Amino acid sequence: MTFDLDSSTDVLRRTPATLRALLDGMAEPLVRGNEGPETFSPFDVVGHLIDGEETDWMTRARIVLSDAAEKSFTPYDRFRHRQRNVGRSLDSLLDEFATLRAANLAELSAWQLTSSQLELEGTHPTFGPVSLRELIAAWVVHDLGHIAQIARVMAKQYRNQVGPWTPFMPVLTDREPQPPTAAAPNRSI
Amino acid sequence: MTFDLDSSTDVLRRTPATLRALLDGMAEPLVRGNEGPETFSPFDVVGHLIDGEETDWMTRARIVLSDAAEKSFTPYDRFRHRQRNVGRSLDSLLDEFATLRAANLAELSAWQLTSSQLELEGTHPTFGPVSLRELIAAWVVHDLGHIAQIARVMAKQYRNQVGPWTPFMPVLTDREPQPPTAAAPNRSI
Repeated sequence: MTFDLDSSTDVLRRTPATLRALLDGMAEPLVRGNEGPETFSPFDVVGHLIDGEETDWMTRARIVLSDAAEKSFTPYDRFRHRQRNVGRSLDSLLDEFATLRAANLAELSAWQLTSSQLELEGTHPTFGPVSLRELIAAWVVHDLGHIAQIARVMAKQYRNQVGPWTPFMPVLTDREPQPPTAAAPNRSI
Repeated sequence: MTFDLDSSTDVLRRTPATLRALLDGMAEPLVRGNEGPETFSPFDVVGHLIDGEETDWMTRARIVLSDAAEKSFTPYDRFRHRQRNVGRSLDSLLDEFATLRAANLAELSAWQLTSSQLELEGTHPTFGPVSLRELIAAWVVHDLGHIAQIARVMAKQYRNQVGPWTPFMPVLTDREPQPPTAAAPNRSI
């Protein structure tokens, strides 16, 4: 697939509604459950996505499009949300994320980026020169990765409840789904 | 987490709206892209979930609750949807899934299952005796696993577009997100 700004923006626009459908009003053990020490719960992931809206993706895109001679990105604190969101409800975080995302996409759309602007570069603190196109694609992948993470983390709260299904549920065991083989063309799960 | 029928049913109720938010009207390369031969695209996953509504979870629950002496489940064909949905649109599959899921959850709710009914068993074709509680938990995990799969498969269509971000995106490389270490307490990605 080649990069397409409109369909990439469309993916980004869907994330707040996807998270609301999946999480708004969900039972607390599923909202707050994680995968172990130093891992994110669904609540943490929404906080992390808010941090991304406020400090990462669009902040960096503005740097790339600026007239600055030195277009270096500031390192992004992946744990800013931990202090920031103490005492907050998930529902208020979901609302805040939706508001921030809508404003960021309105600004992105207003830029009416050209193909040549998408090739402009900034300097990432870890891996050096990156293009605006790569930055926007990474923003999309980052959203989708965290949606997958939320679903996986929720699933893992059921780890001890599915009995003999456990080894047949890749989301619980972190294995990839296996394609069918000649020996098991229609593996029954 | 211990099994709770109400919150499990709540997760199941959310899936059609989650899939609509994520997929309804999405660009075709993202709807039809997969992870390689014999793997599912988002379109395939929705078809597979429809098969589950029609032939798997509730069909098996009815067997468990029946008066039959022999409560054996029929093997579930994971590839039934391939022939079934040729020529269908994703939007029509999303509608069909929502209708089937709503009817199944209405039936499940009408049963007003007791704790002792949840411990009743049927016989799975691969791994033998399973309880109704384990069956319902597996239904929930199956939904969440496939939501995670859809997000991962969509992300992978951007695999060649994120440049140097690739090794930092676990959803692209199938690695788990790594917890921070003393050497990299706030890894910047």
